[in-house]
Amino acid sequence: MHVDGIPYRTVWLEGATVRMINQHLLPHRFEVIDLPTYEDTAAAIRTMIVRGAGAIGAAAGYGLAQAALAAPADSRFAAALARGAGVLRATRPTAVDLFYAIDRVLEAALGAGSVAEGRRAAVETARRLADENAAAGQAIGRHGAALLGQRARVLTHCNAGWLAFVDWGSALAPVYAAARQGKDVFVYVDETRPRCQGARLTAWELGGEGVPYAIIADNAAGHYMQRGQVDAVIVGADRIAANGDVANKIGTYEKAVLAHVHGIPFYVAAPLSTVDPACPSGEAIPIEERDEDEVLYAEGLDEAGDLRRVRVAPAGARAKNPAFDVTPARYVTAFITQRGAHPPGEILAALG
Amino acid sequence: MHVDGIPYRTVWLEGATVRMINQHLLPHRFEVIDLPTYEDTAAAIRTMIVRGAGAIGAAAGYGLAQAALAAPADSRFAAALARGAGVLRATRPTAVDLFYAIDRVLEAALGAGSVAEGRRAAVETARRLADENAAAGQAIGRHGAALLGQRARVLTHCNAGWLAFVDWGSALAPVYAAARQGKDVFVYVDETRPRCQGARLTAWELGGEGVPYAIIADNAAGHYMQRGQVDAVIVGADRIAANGDVANKIGTYEKAVLAHVHGIPFYVAAPLSTVDPACPSGEAIPIEERDEDEVLYAEGLDEAGDLRRVRVAPAGARAKNPAFDVTPARYVTAFITQRGAHPPGEILAALG
Repeated sequence: MHVDGIPYRTVWLEGATVRMINQHLLPHRFEVIDLPTYEDTAAAIRTMIVRGAGAIGAAAGYGLAQAALAAPADSRFAAALARGAGVLRATRPTAVDLFYAIDRVLEAALGAGSVAEGRRAAVETARRLADENAAAGQAIGRHGAALLGQRARVLTHCNAGWLAFVDWGSALAPVYAAARQGKDVFVYVDETRPRCQGARLTAWELGGEGVPYAIIADNAAGHYMQRGQVDAVIVGADRIAANGDVANKIGTYEKAVLAHVHGIPFYVAAPLSTVDPACPSGEAIPIEERDEDEVLYAEGLDEAGDLRRVRVAPAGARAKNPAFDVTPARYVTAFITQRGAHPPGEILAALG
Repeated sequence: MHVDGIPYRTVWLEGATVRMINQHLLPHRFEVIDLPTYEDTAAAIRTMIVRGAGAIGAAAGYGLAQAALAAPADSRFAAALARGAGVLRATRPTAVDLFYAIDRVLEAALGAGSVAEGRRAAVETARRLADENAAAGQAIGRHGAALLGQRARVLTHCNAGWLAFVDWGSALAPVYAAARQGKDVFVYVDETRPRCQGARLTAWELGGEGVPYAIIADNAAGHYMQRGQVDAVIVGADRIAANGDVANKIGTYEKAVLAHVHGIPFYVAAPLSTVDPACPSGEAIPIEERDEDEVLYAEGLDEAGDLRRVRVAPAGARAKNPAFDVTPARYVTAFITQRGAHPPGEILAALG
């Protein structure tokens, strides 16, 4: 995707340096950060300079490739690699894509005939994983765009755009593909309290791609559906259970129910790596309860251009802050993956 | 209701001075402001030092009583009063309660036999209107509390508490009444973006009365309903159409649909003055579109204790900001007014 007209990915490898967009500073400042060592890359994942399942996985793969490039070219190679893998694994303990990428790069590096071969295999595997992630997003975009009419007003929640992946994204990929096909697309962007990934990241992405949009308070989505002004809802997913239940950002469930009541298609776009065959249904997915302060405060840029947190609620106020909710499969019109559009009952079969 | 254990109303008259809680400063600072002249009172209404239909009406009534007290005791009395009424009417052109209060006080003052009588009648009428508003809230509380079980987890949206009226409030009155009856009440407080009246005012009110609550992101309401953790939804109303459709703060419609889907009672609490018999249905109610900045920014207290606005969205971002939505009568389980609980089809009959 583009930033000021220049194509970018979220994270990439240049020589032995990992470079990534610093998502801490978005949407207020665009900066690419250089991470010369795998320890730097691990720290960037831990501190959420990079976030989003696909982007984290790619960053971890590149990080382990860095570890391979820096490891001694002798019998200590394997041990150094294992140490690097351990450091990277410890960054975000719940990110499934991260473990997957680390395992693949480790296998490739250790399975090679020599240290030189191992280094090359690590770099190639990390690159391939990132490319696969970008390709999955592009395919999701193609399949999803086919579901949108010539004029489509799409509502989305949170940020499942290219910043959360290597490129293209999941929920926003169909929007980007449709726009490039010349379709007349408009996006209602739920601001997505409490962390406002919609108002911050989705709005920034859409602006960069020149797709018309409006940020709305999460409260306003139902109003626009009621008025017949939303043609489709597309969201991403954090985890898809075997029965098609979807865990995603808090508020997704409300939009799914509202779409259902108004007869509006509700699409869940995600690469197949998001499907967890070991998870039978949404009831098995634990819901993370996050810090109350995310609700009690808001964050943004002050007049001087500095990021600042302000307290909205009174002193002593209490909050509850579930980070995700579960949308039952019956509210999902179709899943959009790199393999096409699947009815919710067929998501497990789509894994092939 | 109570602030630090001391009973308060939102607005009252002491001698010829109107005193009111400065709602600009809430929830971060509690201050009572003195308004020695009707012009001061008009300015306070215009700048929203007082807000909420009932509170505005009472303030306007008191303001006109101030005008009567200050008017010359001769043939110029009526003209001075009319001038005061004009100034007060111009403050908030859409506030129905404000016009009602001004008309009543004006009638009383001009219908008296002498200037002295007119002054007394103006003050008495303004006091009576405020008392009636407080009494309506108390009756709503009594009728509403009867609908709540011994243990009730109530979800509310926006602020329809005592700060929006003279005392008690509408949506929160049943909560206060139930709590005083010893019922075990817990309130989920929708933060109510974009202006966060829930996180700011409702949380402050409930804290002052010692009612347990948690602020939640508006996105989380459906999640708690899905988990069976909400027993009732109670909201206020800005206008109730003759057919029972309800205009209220943006997001009310989403909660009504979700309550319906989950089989949770959805109550609209309001004094009968909120019913507009001239408005046939919700379709006839215009929806005010407010400034985009309310969505693009958030406001709160910074580390130094100063109120500050921060920009959440990227530079150049666009937003849409409808202030209200319309909930069709079919989603309303019952209206709670000072006369009792009414099925939605009988709200017009309840006017008597």
